[in-house]
Amino acid sequence: MVTLGFNRYGKAEVRVVRVSRGTGPDGSDEIRDWNVSSSLSGDLAGSHLTGDNSHVLPTDTQKNTDYAFAKRLGAVEPEVYALALGRHFVQTQEPITRARMSVEEFGWRRLSGPHSFARDAGSVRTTTVIVDRELGTSIVSGIKDLTVLNTTNSEFWGFPRDEYTTMAETRDRMLATQVSAQWRFRPETAGEDTDFAAVYAQATEALLAAFAQTYSYSLQQSLYAMGERILADVPALCEVRLALPNKHHFLVDLQPFGLTNDNEVYYAADRPYGLIEGRVLADDAPDEGIAFS
Amino acid sequence: MVTLGFNRYGKAEVRVVRVSRGTGPDGSDEIRDWNVSSSLSGDLAGSHLTGDNSHVLPTDTQKNTDYAFAKRLGAVEPEVYALALGRHFVQTQEPITRARMSVEEFGWRRLSGPHSFARDAGSVRTTTVIVDRELGTSIVSGIKDLTVLNTTNSEFWGFPRDEYTTMAETRDRMLATQVSAQWRFRPETAGEDTDFAAVYAQATEALLAAFAQTYSYSLQQSLYAMGERILADVPALCEVRLALPNKHHFLVDLQPFGLTNDNEVYYAADRPYGLIEGRVLADDAPDEGIAFS
Amino acid sequence: MVTLGFNRYGKAEVRVVRVSRGTGPDGSDEIRDWNVSSSLSGDLAGSHLTGDNSHVLPTDTQKNTDYAFAKRLGAVEPEVYALALGRHFVQTQEPITRARMSVEEFGWRRLSGPHSFARDAGSVRTTTVIVDRELGTSIVSGIKDLTVLNTTNSEFWGFPRDEYTTMAETRDRMLATQVSAQWRFRPETAGEDTDFAAVYAQATEALLAAFAQTYSYSLQQSLYAMGERILADVPALCEVRLALPNKHHFLVDLQPFGLTNDNEVYYAADRPYGLIEGRVLADDAPDEGIAFS
Amino acid sequence: MVTLGFNRYGKAEVRVVRVSRGTGPDGSDEIRDWNVSSSLSGDLAGSHLTGDNSHVLPTDTQKNTDYAFAKRLGAVEPEVYALALGRHFVQTQEPITRARMSVEEFGWRRLSGPHSFARDAGSVRTTTVIVDRELGTSIVSGIKDLTVLNTTNSEFWGFPRDEYTTMAETRDRMLATQVSAQWRFRPETAGEDTDFAAVYAQATEALLAAFAQTYSYSLQQSLYAMGERILADVPALCEVRLALPNKHHFLVDLQPFGLTNDNEVYYAADRPYGLIEGRVLADDAPDEGIAFS
Repeated sequence: MVTLGFNRYGKAEVRVVRVSRGTGPDGSDEIRDWNVSSSLSGDLAGSHLTGDNSHVLPTDTQKNTDYAFAKRLGAVEPEVYALALGRHFVQTQEPITRARMSVEEFGWRRLSGPHSFARDAGSVRTTTVIVDRELGTSIVSGIKDLTVLNTTNSEFWGFPRDEYTTMAETRDRMLATQVSAQWRFRPETAGEDTDFAAVYAQATEALLAAFAQTYSYSLQQSLYAMGERILADVPALCEVRLALPNKHHFLVDLQPFGLTNDNEVYYAADRPYGLIEGRVLADDAPDEGIAFS
Repeated sequence: MVTLGFNRYGKAEVRVVRVSRGTGPDGSDEIRDWNVSSSLSGDLAGSHLTGDNSHVLPTDTQKNTDYAFAKRLGAVEPEVYALALGRHFVQTQEPITRARMSVEEFGWRRLSGPHSFARDAGSVRTTTVIVDRELGTSIVSGIKDLTVLNTTNSEFWGFPRDEYTTMAETRDRMLATQVSAQWRFRPETAGEDTDFAAVYAQATEALLAAFAQTYSYSLQQSLYAMGERILADVPALCEVRLALPNKHHFLVDLQPFGLTNDNEVYYAADRPYGLIEGRVLADDAPDEGIAFS
Repeated sequence: MVTLGFNRYGKAEVRVVRVSRGTGPDGSDEIRDWNVSSSLSGDLAGSHLTGDNSHVLPTDTQKNTDYAFAKRLGAVEPEVYALALGRHFVQTQEPITRARMSVEEFGWRRLSGPHSFARDAGSVRTTTVIVDRELGTSIVSGIKDLTVLNTTNSEFWGFPRDEYTTMAETRDRMLATQVSAQWRFRPETAGEDTDFAAVYAQATEALLAAFAQTYSYSLQQSLYAMGERILADVPALCEVRLALPNKHHFLVDLQPFGLTNDNEVYYAADRPYGLIEGRVLADDAPDEGIAFS
Repeated sequence: MVTLGFNRYGKAEVRVVRVSRGTGPDGSDEIRDWNVSSSLSGDLAGSHLTGDNSHVLPTDTQKNTDYAFAKRLGAVEPEVYALALGRHFVQTQEPITRARMSVEEFGWRRLSGPHSFARDAGSVRTTTVIVDRELGTSIVSGIKDLTVLNTTNSEFWGFPRDEYTTMAETRDRMLATQVSAQWRFRPETAGEDTDFAAVYAQATEALLAAFAQTYSYSLQQSLYAMGERILADVPALCEVRLALPNKHHFLVDLQPFGLTNDNEVYYAADRPYGLIEGRVLADDAPDEGIAFS
């Protein structure tokens, strides 16, 4: 005998572009470029067990709703948009007790003229909002695909050596990583009144500053420094989770060619890569609850 | 004040190819093609807080160990390989209390002759083995990137309609998905004595049969049927988790061109897509514990 | 002063899935899964210079035409489909003097039951048909994303050594490549009467056999052997072009761990890779003309 | 009987990162991040026909040479680097008569501090240098992966309508594309004395300005305007080739939900897409010769 466990369903990767005409600086246009995913859960056993879809708001409808709300709300912060959608699904669909909305926001920078933009592909802003009828609302925002590099000020030594260890210690290495960071909002800041644009700007700036200014003895140390700085600078947040691939840059051995290599020429490797994952929490952070589910 | 939460680190995507010479049918070679990731956790606060790496077995060493064990063990099942590595790290590194080993296995089919192969890219076999010094061992295996399609025997109707619903009901649609399935082994089968090759073959066959034979009123129903069939056919397993993107194939409207379209011509859409996720459990499945962490 | 040079435009990557119901073995369905791109050229200066679009059949119309022809023609060979479309555009649009149709065909294998399929992702069949009102018709078909591997029977030595050469000679290496092959049809076979399915099967089989059976002193030698075999086995063809990345599999040095590595454990590298490109022609091959333009 | 046609071989995607310490503004570091591919051709029949590799400088040696030259030359413009490598291979390898060097350059922007950078992923700078012992030297540089968008000032109408045309004319649409541009240097500017950094900056600026300032009746018209402006602004160039996918942004129909959509809410489509390709030449441009081979 088998039983149905946790399940959810939704429409993934709805590409919504919202233009707000003339509302930007000097009457220029504003643009929001989003990749939106919804995921609903609740009383959905019928659909799984007998094909009874009476509780299954179609994913096509979820897509339509994403577009209609983009019209209604305007070019708002992605957290505000996700909050409204999450509440809508839970409030209007009796069998749906939880909605999870994820938004990736792609940046654009202005070109000359009020209507022209170029994609700013250096990073992606993210948010995941979960609205649960009983357990409340959580917001986790962040940034991903942000690649950063220090040409020096990184060492790695003092590690244990076993029979499989061949790597030499180093007192000066290049350190590069592609940051994925998620920051959890305190429950009292998980609403429309929070200045999400400011939080995003401050958290990103804190992260970059911590990376650049940390003299690092391990990528773990840099990770902790980033999380610590974000929490110090942004009171609305109570936890930061980071995943940092160590994008290895190996010094090329130029000796066979009669050349020195005084930390000048590197091979940027693809795979394998180190992968450092860690969480940093404020001492008074409440339990994560549904935030990362 | 901030504090360090759960963390782990390791070497991701180590590409190991293991050839076993002459041990295949008629003296042919055998080949295992793996993408291996290790992740260690335990007493690693020093590395994060002060840059003390005395507990940090280098990820480069983890990579070396992956290769050395491939030599020692031979072209074994990926679960056996991952188990041995996981135990090694926990047993030899005092500060490391948990090791998580993930292996993706890429298939190859034989060409004529004993030494020649072609990549069989229709799916990827996966396993994740977690060895915890206190909490024991878990094995979750599965398959991904397996795209399947039914040209008929799928309906979708009876769903709720709200103000944003425009989709028509359908009594005959194409159903296609790219299967990601993970099956959890019962604790007593999470060891080297299990016939992992047989489990993989049986579970995959059950999954395909259930997909092909289910007259489906929703992709959720197909999902449940797949999980149910796997658990019915493979006693070593106690849970199946599935993630099924609904790879929409929309009928093209040919009426403007004076043509009928009697379920013949489809547009295969990329984005957005429905995403159906669900878990099916044996009634006597033990708690998941660390299995999916 | 500047001038407009060669130009073309069209609709790329139209995803057409054509089901033919009950026409397969034992009354099963047949399926064609295509990625179709059209590109038109001719008298299009107006569109570039003054925005006069009177000669520009919309790319949206090209897409519609792709679908309508899939309906009309049925689940035919991709070359037949591309030929019909190419002729249509040139014959019906006076300013369009040349049409270039490219089709990628994705394979599916049958599951149990008449309606069920699984994606066979081991390779992609390709064709490019060019119809020029004055210069006639050319057909170039082929295969891509076909990864093959020999565990032995490959050497590489006798190469020149300069001051930058550090690589050792090898008398036994693994040889792997991801084949991209294009074969040009003789002009007299570039029409609907050709058995394109047979050509595809024969050419692919010849290619695989040549790869498996060639004792290779360089990937260049394997390349030539593949082209030669295809031309020998398939009289309809007059030229083969191959691009073969050398997917390096490096032996891992296990000596530091007290282990031998008798061609057993390899590291599969991503980048960089050798890239071998070459053309093999029948002695009586006519000039390529527009075939590869 | 078959014969060997044109062929070439080399090492593709060598990832070279060159740091120049303290040579940047205020004593900061400079960085060049390159993906380098070499391709050699000449008297290579032996390798194909008999496996005689005496003319085949190993691709591994080519890789080593890439690194050694990065050391020797420093953080120079990619064209200068490619020129030096191309000449080296042709001058030192008697059987090699032509070398083709391609470099992709990835941008980095400075963070605070002299050693810290973030990847600027909005576009990739490219160059392809071909050095032929008899035919001379050509340089084609460019930019790719540069996504730009105008929220208005684009129309599309006046196109021919046939039986497959369903698209409505539009007097106001969003226009977006991902630019791939290649500009050919005049022969007399294809040497180290050219200010390649200035050409890149001027050509990119011209391209962006032309896109933003062109009131467009077709993407073809925008293409021509970009090429024309580049040639007008950068005398060192004689030809521009552009490939512009029309990244369709479709207005979402919100009428079913009682909402207007006054060019505010768009669906950003992936596939299919229009693809516009064209060349713009200076009236006195010499024949392209080997430049794009």
